[in-house]
Amino acid sequence: MPAASGQLTRVALDLLGGDGAPDVVGDAVGLMLRDALPVHLLLVGPVDLGSQILRERGLDPGRVTILPARCGVPMDGHPLDAVREDTQREQAELTVTVAARAVRDGLADAWVSAGHTGAAVAAAVLTSGRVAGMQRPALAVVLPALEQPVVLLDAGASIDPSPQALVQFAVAGWCYARSLGVAEPSVGLLTIGSESGKGDELRREAEHALRERLTAHGIPFAGPVEGHDVVAGSRAQVVVTDGFTGNVLLKGIEGAVEWAVERIGRAYGEPGPARRVLREVATGEFAGGVLLGVNATTVVGHGGGSAAQVAACVRLAARCAAGGVLAQVRAALAPLEPA
Amino acid sequence: MPAASGQLTRVALDLLGGDGAPDVVGDAVGLMLRDALPVHLLLVGPVDLGSQILRERGLDPGRVTILPARCGVPMDGHPLDAVREDTQREQAELTVTVAARAVRDGLADAWVSAGHTGAAVAAAVLTSGRVAGMQRPALAVVLPALEQPVVLLDAGASIDPSPQALVQFAVAGWCYARSLGVAEPSVGLLTIGSESGKGDELRREAEHALRERLTAHGIPFAGPVEGHDVVAGSRAQVVVTDGFTGNVLLKGIEGAVEWAVERIGRAYGEPGPARRVLREVATGEFAGGVLLGVNATTVVGHGGGSAAQVAACVRLAARCAAGGVLAQVRAALAPLEPA
Repeated sequence: MPAASGQLTRVALDLLGGDGAPDVVGDAVGLMLRDALPVHLLLVGPVDLGSQILRERGLDPGRVTILPARCGVPMDGHPLDAVREDTQREQAELTVTVAARAVRDGLADAWVSAGHTGAAVAAAVLTSGRVAGMQRPALAVVLPALEQPVVLLDAGASIDPSPQALVQFAVAGWCYARSLGVAEPSVGLLTIGSESGKGDELRREAEHALRERLTAHGIPFAGPVEGHDVVAGSRAQVVVTDGFTGNVLLKGIEGAVEWAVERIGRAYGEPGPARRVLREVATGEFAGGVLLGVNATTVVGHGGGSAAQVAACVRLAARCAAGGVLAQVRAALAPLEPA
Repeated sequence: MPAASGQLTRVALDLLGGDGAPDVVGDAVGLMLRDALPVHLLLVGPVDLGSQILRERGLDPGRVTILPARCGVPMDGHPLDAVREDTQREQAELTVTVAARAVRDGLADAWVSAGHTGAAVAAAVLTSGRVAGMQRPALAVVLPALEQPVVLLDAGASIDPSPQALVQFAVAGWCYARSLGVAEPSVGLLTIGSESGKGDELRREAEHALRERLTAHGIPFAGPVEGHDVVAGSRAQVVVTDGFTGNVLLKGIEGAVEWAVERIGRAYGEPGPARRVLREVATGEFAGGVLLGVNATTVVGHGGGSAAQVAACVRLAARCAAGGVLAQVRAALAPLEPA
C-alpha cells in the first residue's frame, strides 16, 4: 500500500546485498539521512552489525529501524534454493526474505536489495505472489534516452518468456512509463530490424500478439525496434524483450557509456565533465530496476553499485510506492488474467 | 585467394547496397581513390549508373572496373527469396550475387555490401559455400574496447545457432582476432552473469561445449562474460553469442556511444572533440562486419552508413583478403568437420 500523503514512505533495505555490503549499504544510509526525503529506512540484517554500521558512521539510530535477519543469500551453492527454503520457514533468516515479508506484512511500503538479482526476484515472487494477469515478473529499467526516458523490460528477471508474457510486460511497462510522467508512451518490440517479421520465433509470435492485444487495450504499438532505438527514445518509450536479451543489452549500454566517458574525456584532455555525466546517469535512471508483476514494490540494484547508487535505488522505491505504481499495474493487468 | 604481395587487392563493391546508395557508395569510391591503398575497386551495378556516378564526381574511370549487374536486392517482398532465385540464374542480375560470383570466379579477392545483411549473407553462402567445419556463418565485428579490441560474433548472420555452432564461431573468431594482431586472445561466452550455469538453455549447453572443445584445440576459454565485458575487453577478446543477441547488443552499444557523445559534448559546452571520437570509431572498428564461415572474404556494412564507413568496409575487406584470414579460418575449422 502506498503511504498516505504527509506520511513517511517506509523502505526496507537489504544490509547484506551487493558486492560492497555492508559498508556500501551503510554509506548509502548516511546519504539517505542527509537528504530531506520523506522516507523512513528499515535496515534489514543482523542487529549487532546494523548498530555497528550506524555507530561507525555517526548516524542517529533513532532515524533508522533495524529489522533483524540472520544472514545474506549464500552465494556459493544454490542461492535460489536457499531463498525457496527460507520462504518456507516461520522465522525467515535471509535478508531478502525478511525484507520482502516486511512489505507483505505492512511494516514497509517497498524494499530494495543490491544483491543477487535472481534471489531478490525469487524472494519477491515467493513472498508476495504475482500480480493477477502477469505470469512472470519483469525487471523494468529506465534508460536516459536522447529524446525522452525509455523503460526497458525485462532486464533480467524472466529468461525464457512466452509471447503472452511479453504482452504482459508491455502493459506493465506502459503503466510504469506513464507513472514516470512520459506522455502517451508507445511500446516497441526489441528485435534486429525495423521491418515486420525479423528475428527469431519468439519475436515473430510476440509481434503478432502485441499488435493484437495492445491495440485492444488502447496502448499504442510502435512495432519492431532495434538496439539503438532503446537509447534514442524516439520510436518507442517502452521496449519489451526477454530477460536474457534485456540484461545483455542493459549491461552493454552501461559498458559503452563508461567506454565513451573515458575515451571522450581523454579527447578533451580533462576528464572531469565527462565523468560527472557518468555519475549523474549512474545515480539517476540507471541505478536500479523495479520488479513489475509482483505484489510488492521491489527495487533491485547493481551488485557492484556505489553508495550513491544504492541510495538512488531507495529513492526510486520510495517514489514508486508513494506514486502507487503497483496499484496502477494491478488495475491494467487484471483484465489479462484468464477467468 | 589473397593477392600476391605487391599486387593490388581487388575488392568488389555493391553500388546499390545501403540506404544512401548509389550516391553514398559513389562518394566512398571517391574517398578510396584518394587513398594510396593497394586496392583495385570493382563497382558492381548497372554500367550506365556506375559511369554516371564516376563522371559526376570527376573520378578516373580507368581506376575502377564496373562489373555489370541489373539491380539491387528488392526490399519489398522477400529479399532472401530473390537472392536464392538469382543465384540459380546462369546470368545473375542482383548486385550481391554478381559481387559474390566475382570472388568465386577469381575476378575479385573480396566483396563488400552495405545493403540488407540477410541478403548479403545468403548471396555469400549460396554462391561460395560454407567453410568445412562451420555449419552456419557468423558476422564478426571488432569493438574498440578499453583494454584491447574485442571481436564480437555473431552480430546478426545466424539467429538460432546450436551450442556446436557457437563453438565454431569461437574458433573462427579466435583466428580473426589473431589476424588482427591480438596476442593470445581468449574466448568468452556472452551471458547474464559471470558465474557458470547462468542464462538460458543454449548458454548452459554452449558453456559446457566451449569448455571441452576449445581446451582440446588449445584455445583459452575465459568462461561466461557479460554485456559490459564486451566493451571493456579485459576478460575476453573474442565474445561469442547467437546472431539475435549479438545484433541487439551491437546496435545498443552504437546507440549508447552516440548518446554519450551528445550528452558529454554538451557538458563540455563544445561538442567538436566528442563528435570527432564518434567519427573515428564509426569509420574504424565499427564500420562493418566480416562474414566468417563462407568461402569468400565478405564484409557487410551498416545500411545507414556514411561514405567514410563504406570506404572503411572496403579497407577492412582488403586487409582481410591480403592477410589471408579466410585461409587461417579454414585451417582452424577443418578438424571440426564431421568425417
